[in-house]
Amino acid sequence: MEKGIKELETKGKLAREASRKLACLSTEIKNRALIEIALNIIVGKTEILEANRHDYEEAKAGGMSEAMLDRLLLTEERIRCMADDVNSVAALPDPVGEVFDMRTMPNGLLIGKRRIPMGVIAAIYESRPNVTIDIATLCLKSGNAVILRGGKETLRSNIALASVVSDALQKSGVPLGAVQLIENTDRALVNELLKMRDVIDLVIPRGGAGLIKFVRDNASMPVVSGGIGVCHTYVDKSADMDKAVAIVYNAKVQRPTVCNALDSILVHKDIAEDYLPMLARELGKAGVELHCDPESLYILEHVKGLKLIPAVPEDWGKEFLALIAAVKVVDTLDAALEHIAVYGSGHSEAIITEEYTSAMRFLNEVDAAAVYVNASTRFTDGSQFGLGAELGISTQKMHARGPMGLKEITSYKWIIFGNGQVRP
Amino acid sequence: MEKGIKELETKGKLAREASRKLACLSTEIKNRALIEIALNIIVGKTEILEANRHDYEEAKAGGMSEAMLDRLLLTEERIRCMADDVNSVAALPDPVGEVFDMRTMPNGLLIGKRRIPMGVIAAIYESRPNVTIDIATLCLKSGNAVILRGGKETLRSNIALASVVSDALQKSGVPLGAVQLIENTDRALVNELLKMRDVIDLVIPRGGAGLIKFVRDNASMPVVSGGIGVCHTYVDKSADMDKAVAIVYNAKVQRPTVCNALDSILVHKDIAEDYLPMLARELGKAGVELHCDPESLYILEHVKGLKLIPAVPEDWGKEFLALIAAVKVVDTLDAALEHIAVYGSGHSEAIITEEYTSAMRFLNEVDAAAVYVNASTRFTDGSQFGLGAELGISTQKMHARGPMGLKEITSYKWIIFGNGQVRP
Repeated sequence: MEKGIKELETKGKLAREASRKLACLSTEIKNRALIEIALNIIVGKTEILEANRHDYEEAKAGGMSEAMLDRLLLTEERIRCMADDVNSVAALPDPVGEVFDMRTMPNGLLIGKRRIPMGVIAAIYESRPNVTIDIATLCLKSGNAVILRGGKETLRSNIALASVVSDALQKSGVPLGAVQLIENTDRALVNELLKMRDVIDLVIPRGGAGLIKFVRDNASMPVVSGGIGVCHTYVDKSADMDKAVAIVYNAKVQRPTVCNALDSILVHKDIAEDYLPMLARELGKAGVELHCDPESLYILEHVKGLKLIPAVPEDWGKEFLALIAAVKVVDTLDAALEHIAVYGSGHSEAIITEEYTSAMRFLNEVDAAAVYVNASTRFTDGSQFGLGAELGISTQKMHARGPMGLKEITSYKWIIFGNGQVRP
Repeated sequence: MEKGIKELETKGKLAREASRKLACLSTEIKNRALIEIALNIIVGKTEILEANRHDYEEAKAGGMSEAMLDRLLLTEERIRCMADDVNSVAALPDPVGEVFDMRTMPNGLLIGKRRIPMGVIAAIYESRPNVTIDIATLCLKSGNAVILRGGKETLRSNIALASVVSDALQKSGVPLGAVQLIENTDRALVNELLKMRDVIDLVIPRGGAGLIKFVRDNASMPVVSGGIGVCHTYVDKSADMDKAVAIVYNAKVQRPTVCNALDSILVHKDIAEDYLPMLARELGKAGVELHCDPESLYILEHVKGLKLIPAVPEDWGKEFLALIAAVKVVDTLDAALEHIAVYGSGHSEAIITEEYTSAMRFLNEVDAAAVYVNASTRFTDGSQFGLGAELGISTQKMHARGPMGLKEITSYKWIIFGNGQVRP
């Protein structure tokens, strides 16, 4: 533990030093390092796969679930995808150095803002080893030094990947403090890391609700988190039924284990009798289990082949991450808005409607990172929103909201060009 | 205490409810309320002055310093200024509702961001009663509900001002929960306030270093703070001497008690012998005390009429807030950059130079909210930077950096106009 803290402090110091150099590093050098990382991943794939095989076998012997094992596993193809992703990051525009809001004041001062890196970012994450490469490359591109703390179960994979990164940094003239992995997975050290406010400018937790809460409660520095999505789709009385079936189906079924997947369906009472059976038949084919309020249960209990369960209070505001949806019939748009205000997590919410005023009210009044009219909440994603890459999805209002790309892990400074001006 | 907490919870609930309404309030209604506040201040000035006289006399009897008493004092003229400031806020453009980064994606989704209020802001501040009106009006204009907790010494003044505000809100149809004052100044309640993460989206502490540190250490929600400025001006070897004297003089003398005033002067060794006596004679006339490193002391000790003191290590990195400056001779631009990196507080830093490359290196490499070439650091201010009004100056990198105007206390949401799109 004592030794672990020392190591942590050394890493912090190196990261801080590296961050000063990184802030002034040219896009060319950063891109060269990224391309080297991609190359190294391909060249070093045998070692990476070997390390991952060890992690996998140990986790399997330890009784890890199939789903989790799949997240942990690297394959030749996944390695290739990882390298491709790194090259994609290299191809993105560099956010650092962008100058904006520049203007000349009446006294002749030329004043504007220039985009700069945040400084040092700590990332605390679980299971998937490709997160190591994802975060390392996005931080590098945006000029941020990063300290990575991955899960214990992928330690060997992470060490192999981090060594591939270090080698690329060295070859390209990027300070090694730019990307550092904490190899000591003692949980108490995470606590120490979260105290290092002087060194770390921002912490990004990526993982389950437990991890995020732990980081939020214990970090002494700013945290950008999110990833928990209790997503509603409200089908208004004027909805186009076919669109409403297709959108809800997509939001629930296309990838149920992610944060932007649908959790609750709210249906206006005027169309519930026609719409719900149409929808439920489609969802039923995909094996979706429906947790129904009394009204929807009454409508649906005659439809064959459905998995229906009476909803319990805990179903509202629950992130299912599975082929399950809660269903509720509402009397009015206002009731839907109220339900979302109470139970939503501020991630992604949608209305399906053909009525202009309902659409505009929903857009205006719902307080969430992404608010949709007539589209699937599954679109809440950095690449779908045109950010090129994504570090996570923020559900907070400070700093960045919604998908976080490169620009969202930067800050700015005011730059002022004077010619002797003094304040009168 | 028990009762205080109950009241706090009620205020929190009212603020949260009000914030939902405020988010959708038209600019017209918000401006009407602001104009009513300005009117009410003028109409109610007798009561306000009376309340303030009580605060003043009690503080005076309690032995408050002259400087602090002056900050506490309201006069007819200060009341008029306060009302004028409120009308200025009404005249500013409304940041809420601004739509930006809007574009049509290849699949036809129209995606963009819309500016929204943060929600509920808590402001914790000391002494000057006009802060009550300042913060209340800026929050109102930006659609944020605000909970105000002013100092004990201005409680009567604050109650009078808050009642003027409440009356104006009522007349204009703005929910009363929009602006609330905590009248119970029990210090323990601040602690309770800082725990209310579910209700308060952002805390803004305004006051001395002690208050800011206390809020930072204890707040469970995001904090935007700053206000502590250890500001350097570096006079490069190529500086225009006249400009360099005028700028340093202005930065130190024009208003020494504020955060953007100069604290340390760094001078390149090649011009120190010529420049320092020129500068010191001017500063001496204004009564500035100089805390000199050995080199500058050696140069200046022959100049008559100066207050010279050998610098001690604590002088570097100290915010003097008085007619005192630390002086140091440096060998190179790099030494100046290193000194600023170690001792600066990330507020405002300036270089005086005629050399292009030195200017650009300084702008690039110094990490501060505002970085100047050939101008006085005293310009770091919302109105000087063209923001119209200022809630404070942030020295952090998250969210907003430098002067914070209306836009800086907003967030955004993504709005998506679809036509049946689903994710493939």
